[in-house]
Amino acid sequence: MDEFETIARLFAPLSRGEPGAFGLTDDAAALAPAPGCDFVLTKDAIVAGVHFFADDPPEAVAAKLMRVNLSDLAAKGARPRACLLAAGFSPAAGPAWVEGFAAGLAADVAAFGLTLIGGDTVSTSGPAWFSLTAIGEVPTGTMIRRAGARAGDLVCVSGTIGDAALYVAGRLKGRAVGDLSAFEGRYRLPTPRLDLGASLRGLAHACCDISDGLVADLGHLCEQSGLAAVVEAGRVPLSAAAAAAVAADPGLIETVLTGGDDYELVFALAPEDLAKLAGQGGTAIGRFEQGQGVRAIDPAGSPLTLGRGGWRHDVGGPDPKSGVVGS
Amino acid sequence: MDEFETIARLFAPLSRGEPGAFGLTDDAAALAPAPGCDFVLTKDAIVAGVHFFADDPPEAVAAKLMRVNLSDLAAKGARPRACLLAAGFSPAAGPAWVEGFAAGLAADVAAFGLTLIGGDTVSTSGPAWFSLTAIGEVPTGTMIRRAGARAGDLVCVSGTIGDAALYVAGRLKGRAVGDLSAFEGRYRLPTPRLDLGASLRGLAHACCDISDGLVADLGHLCEQSGLAAVVEAGRVPLSAAAAAAVAADPGLIETVLTGGDDYELVFALAPEDLAKLAGQGGTAIGRFEQGQGVRAIDPAGSPLTLGRGGWRHDVGGPDPKSGVVGS
Repeated sequence: MDEFETIARLFAPLSRGEPGAFGLTDDAAALAPAPGCDFVLTKDAIVAGVHFFADDPPEAVAAKLMRVNLSDLAAKGARPRACLLAAGFSPAAGPAWVEGFAAGLAADVAAFGLTLIGGDTVSTSGPAWFSLTAIGEVPTGTMIRRAGARAGDLVCVSGTIGDAALYVAGRLKGRAVGDLSAFEGRYRLPTPRLDLGASLRGLAHACCDISDGLVADLGHLCEQSGLAAVVEAGRVPLSAAAAAAVAADPGLIETVLTGGDDYELVFALAPEDLAKLAGQGGTAIGRFEQGQGVRAIDPAGSPLTLGRGGWRHDVGGPDPKSGVVGS
Repeated sequence: MDEFETIARLFAPLSRGEPGAFGLTDDAAALAPAPGCDFVLTKDAIVAGVHFFADDPPEAVAAKLMRVNLSDLAAKGARPRACLLAAGFSPAAGPAWVEGFAAGLAADVAAFGLTLIGGDTVSTSGPAWFSLTAIGEVPTGTMIRRAGARAGDLVCVSGTIGDAALYVAGRLKGRAVGDLSAFEGRYRLPTPRLDLGASLRGLAHACCDISDGLVADLGHLCEQSGLAAVVEAGRVPLSAAAAAAVAADPGLIETVLTGGDDYELVFALAPEDLAKLAGQGGTAIGRFEQGQGVRAIDPAGSPLTLGRGGWRHDVGGPDPKSGVVGS
């Protein structure tokens, strides 16, 4: 199957519903935001051996690609509208792999209500790689920024924190974290918090998603907002499996706080606005304050030492130097 | 230099002039077309050993990435506005390579009047790869399509045809084409025909750029327009060097007509409109007619046999199987 057949058979159906995609038969798409709206645009790439395991099923790779990008839209309060794909397939994986990838993309395009409007497929003799440009919409001027948190704002997070990092720590570093299968789904198939993100428009003062780790991404909010933040480790929401792992090995709290790949949201909220999020999954875990940097304290108020503030995506490729420049 | 330093020092300056890029300090950009305009969006990727030579200077790789995408915008009649970059750098190439790449991108961003509004940088143990999402603007509803050519329209092209293909044939296949240096620049540094493309809005009935070869890309116009086309080979405009090469080896006309990488425009024009393009570089080389497919005739009117109607980008990577799925 050559590129034109691949596009016509596997990818063109994903453009249905967007007239400006021209069924992927043209050089480009023509698109404008809905009246009174801005486009919100983001582009993240994933590489085999760095951001996903080379033996991951193609459907899961496509879903991860889609979701890490939709997570950025969620953090900005945007609703997904369209996407463009660049795919560097490994010919060794064969046409079934491409079909599986397209099926995974099709499922998420349908699930999240967007369309594929263009892109490019090539092959590479190196690790497979994929880049997605995701396009969302917000009412004009309402994109939630990283900048804008205020001293006294609550630090809030969606969902639970740390499962993806515990999976990586257990699978790659042999840390005892309990049953790996309890964490695997969170690593492989992140859930972009699109509904919560849309609710945060006009409410949260700042927001980003947690891809590099809670401490690092909260650090981005602090840096862009010119503030510091303190996190009460005991208030960070954990899944039952993560709570059990940390109870058995308290040192794992560092993995929870600094590990990446959660794709939850971290945001700044005025204390009086917390009640407005009732039932939508926001948990207050700390405060923004004057200063710089992120610190964490234990339930007794003592500072927690975090070995590193960031996180590098690396699932253990064949060459350690192939580790990521960025994420 | 980690990803954040790379972005802040090398790439953030390329976002100047676009407030919605937020200086590349946020998860996403917020952008709307100018009032009364659509965005035109395209995304092409290039891979070392397939679309460029691994030892090409990084500035030239960045320029090629930018220009193959801007060529798509030109073909659609769009003016460049913004772009997003995904870069899979080879760590072995070192930081100077990244700096050179950023410098090449900066030069073209300035030359073509657009901004960089987002993206992602990663590293890969395989061949370096780059994907650009280019965003242009056209007055609402005026994007020039591949569909729309009419029987009786002239087949027109911009510039001259075949130099890039003659360079590849000479460098990789050892064909005698004369002085390779006469062709090299056209291969390495395509010129997107943005002014001509903008002039074609409301005038050309259909247009695309010539990346896969004149015959193949004209074939795309025919297919989408439901027509056939005949090309008079003797009227195809050639550079002096290409004309000399074809005079010395008439068989090279096949390379000229089917080779890729010219990044000129091929378009459909009513005969009475040709004069309106005076001085802008359009040359009539044939006609659209009822039927299917593209055929070429020599100056005596005899059919030319073309060994293949298409072109596959392949600059001779280490593994023949790494040749392209698509372009």
